[in-house]
Amino acid sequence: MLRSFIELPPESHFPLQNLPYGIVRPRAGGPPRVGVAIGAYVLDLSVLEAAGLLRGTSTDGLGVFARPALNPLMALGRPAWRELRALLTRLLSADEPALRDSPALRDAALLPLAAVELLLPAEIGDYTDFYSSRHHATNVGTMFRGAEHALPPNWLQLPIGYHGRSSSITLSGTNLRRPRGQHKPPNASAPIFGPTRQLDFELELGFFIGPGNPLGEPVTLERAEEQIFGLVLLNDWSARDIQAWEGQPLGPFLAKNFCTAISPWVVPLDALEPFRIPGPTQAPEPLTYLRQSAPAAFDLRLEVLLQTATMQAPTRIAASNARHLYWSMAQQLAHHTVGGCNLRPGDLLASGTISGPEREERGCMLELAWRGTEPVALPNGEQRAWLEDGDQLTLTGWGQGDGYRVGFGEVTGQVLPAA
Amino acid sequence: MLRSFIELPPESHFPLQNLPYGIVRPRAGGPPRVGVAIGAYVLDLSVLEAAGLLRGTSTDGLGVFARPALNPLMALGRPAWRELRALLTRLLSADEPALRDSPALRDAALLPLAAVELLLPAEIGDYTDFYSSRHHATNVGTMFRGAEHALPPNWLQLPIGYHGRSSSITLSGTNLRRPRGQHKPPNASAPIFGPTRQLDFELELGFFIGPGNPLGEPVTLERAEEQIFGLVLLNDWSARDIQAWEGQPLGPFLAKNFCTAISPWVVPLDALEPFRIPGPTQAPEPLTYLRQSAPAAFDLRLEVLLQTATMQAPTRIAASNARHLYWSMAQQLAHHTVGGCNLRPGDLLASGTISGPEREERGCMLELAWRGTEPVALPNGEQRAWLEDGDQLTLTGWGQGDGYRVGFGEVTGQVLPAA
Repeated sequence: MLRSFIELPPESHFPLQNLPYGIVRPRAGGPPRVGVAIGAYVLDLSVLEAAGLLRGTSTDGLGVFARPALNPLMALGRPAWRELRALLTRLLSADEPALRDSPALRDAALLPLAAVELLLPAEIGDYTDFYSSRHHATNVGTMFRGAEHALPPNWLQLPIGYHGRSSSITLSGTNLRRPRGQHKPPNASAPIFGPTRQLDFELELGFFIGPGNPLGEPVTLERAEEQIFGLVLLNDWSARDIQAWEGQPLGPFLAKNFCTAISPWVVPLDALEPFRIPGPTQAPEPLTYLRQSAPAAFDLRLEVLLQTATMQAPTRIAASNARHLYWSMAQQLAHHTVGGCNLRPGDLLASGTISGPEREERGCMLELAWRGTEPVALPNGEQRAWLEDGDQLTLTGWGQGDGYRVGFGEVTGQVLPAA
Repeated sequence: MLRSFIELPPESHFPLQNLPYGIVRPRAGGPPRVGVAIGAYVLDLSVLEAAGLLRGTSTDGLGVFARPALNPLMALGRPAWRELRALLTRLLSADEPALRDSPALRDAALLPLAAVELLLPAEIGDYTDFYSSRHHATNVGTMFRGAEHALPPNWLQLPIGYHGRSSSITLSGTNLRRPRGQHKPPNASAPIFGPTRQLDFELELGFFIGPGNPLGEPVTLERAEEQIFGLVLLNDWSARDIQAWEGQPLGPFLAKNFCTAISPWVVPLDALEPFRIPGPTQAPEPLTYLRQSAPAAFDLRLEVLLQTATMQAPTRIAASNARHLYWSMAQQLAHHTVGGCNLRPGDLLASGTISGPEREERGCMLELAWRGTEPVALPNGEQRAWLEDGDQLTLTGWGQGDGYRVGFGEVTGQVLPAA
């Protein structure tokens, strides 16, 4: 197995097999730059480039590393990403002396994670959220429309998606102020205004777009994965009472746009290859532009952890898997562009809540507590129908290899009382 | 009446009372910069600044004019905009010699409109589209749900809106490639894929955000207009068959994201003050955060012109007025932020289709031809149920003053056949 000269325990999310990209700012000073996580360290690519270690690659000298966002690197495209990844894998491997045996270079280029501040990895021009888990859509539909009409008629024909809000995408660690808004309590004759009473999370994965496509020129399914730079965990904070009242006919708006949180490290699609599997059988067969034969799903374990204000440690309230997604990332991307919509480097597309068939695999409180009717029992005797002030919610996830994990780290945030 | 030393006919959209901002690139060469339209000329603000004519204002020396987008100017806020507007009004007035009597300065700073290329006025981070015309919502609701359930239950309680697509916002003059997508013909058992058969326009106004607000800090209704930099015409190109099939439960997606077109000149809110009027009576009375007493509507005439491939000149197919909007811009903005959503300089908020009570005041083909059942008769004998390939669609609009017009120019585009 590939090994790095940097020591790391088998449960580390950031082994040599991962090499996720992020934007870091050294706490000691200096501008933001591109870093790669390796164990408990960050490899500073701007230092590597300045030291000449990237010479000969197509990324060298383009100035994409001494930058406050990954967008320029994303724009370069898959051949450049692969070349860079191969080089970084070699530089960090146990057999390669260039970095390993140069104490000065190691001191400059390898910063402890604790010595850097993590920043949002990209300038996100547009953010799109899909609705691609059949179990999630079926559960939600059953609650709101009854079991016979659970899936909307279009659901099995296309990956339903909607445009989300880019400005309020925040990094893991940003606490969540409980939003206020209009909602209409059951049996009330008119709506009221106040803090949401049904605050929720959503367990999702998001992926960042690479070079993108010009307006009017769709990306085919066959070439869709060339556009996927990498993936992050995403918590689509939601206010269910606001959503129920505002959501028809034009979809979620204030129920979702107060905050969407992502994990800081962008895991390259290539790092997830060992976990590629066939997705669920799609019946009816999709229209031609959505038809795929190659495996396009990924076996990635996902967990939701909750720590209430009175708990000493977080407890797991759900465990799901990205394999449960009915529509693949490639299908989402091909559908998104089929009418000519252009994607740009740094655009973010998310999966929608990822729920599995089992009760503990439900990816949001709405489902876990079945719209508040079956509150979730916590080990300390507390119950949760919805998130409460003081709750700390954490998503985590990884691909489990043989003796290693390709992990996403986490996205976490605490619920603060309404202003 | 205020007069400029620059000659202009009374029907000009760009008299001294307007002074709209845009981004222009001289055809003779040079980088994009901020310009102001005056009659058939563009006043180059980067030249004025370099010549010292902006000295003493708070915008001087900030470098906001030699820029490829209005965002930095937008970020300065209303006091700075007003100061600049007052200075430009003085510099262009008939009584002021500074520019009038300096041939060298006039040659450098005043470019014929034909000598510049117009560019998108701002980098638009997020785009939101509202649904604020009661007549439009009632017509659409009547067609799809019947007259008794025409308005959704929430419609009179909040300005319904949804997040749109920023990447595909284009400038007037961009032709429109007929999009392809999934739609399900009536009585068909399954959807089909192909060019939209129900291509439509939507007559809208959009407004650009100024300084914006931090995440978690709503903008109150009282302070909402301080955030409005200025307005443009907006054509929300739409594919109605795609929309009907994909739109539930999460709203329009591919039906709208293939192109949204705007006019190039951003008309300052201050230029529209002469046209401010009280809006429609709102009953039921909105919740407190949406309650407004001051007049917040605007009397702006709006027209839709169509020229088919066989016509020699455009013909007017609709005439509406911004006064018909039920929800004001201030209400839209206050609602958008009430849950904590942050707005950023250059964000664009649009009204939704602006229809009036009369048949000829309907702001889209869906309404004008009543979902295809009452085709619009054109003067040359042609009919239109939806837009056809070769059709050139133009929106225009203005506030009519006493002897002058504060105009928006136009947003125009021709329909090209599907790829």
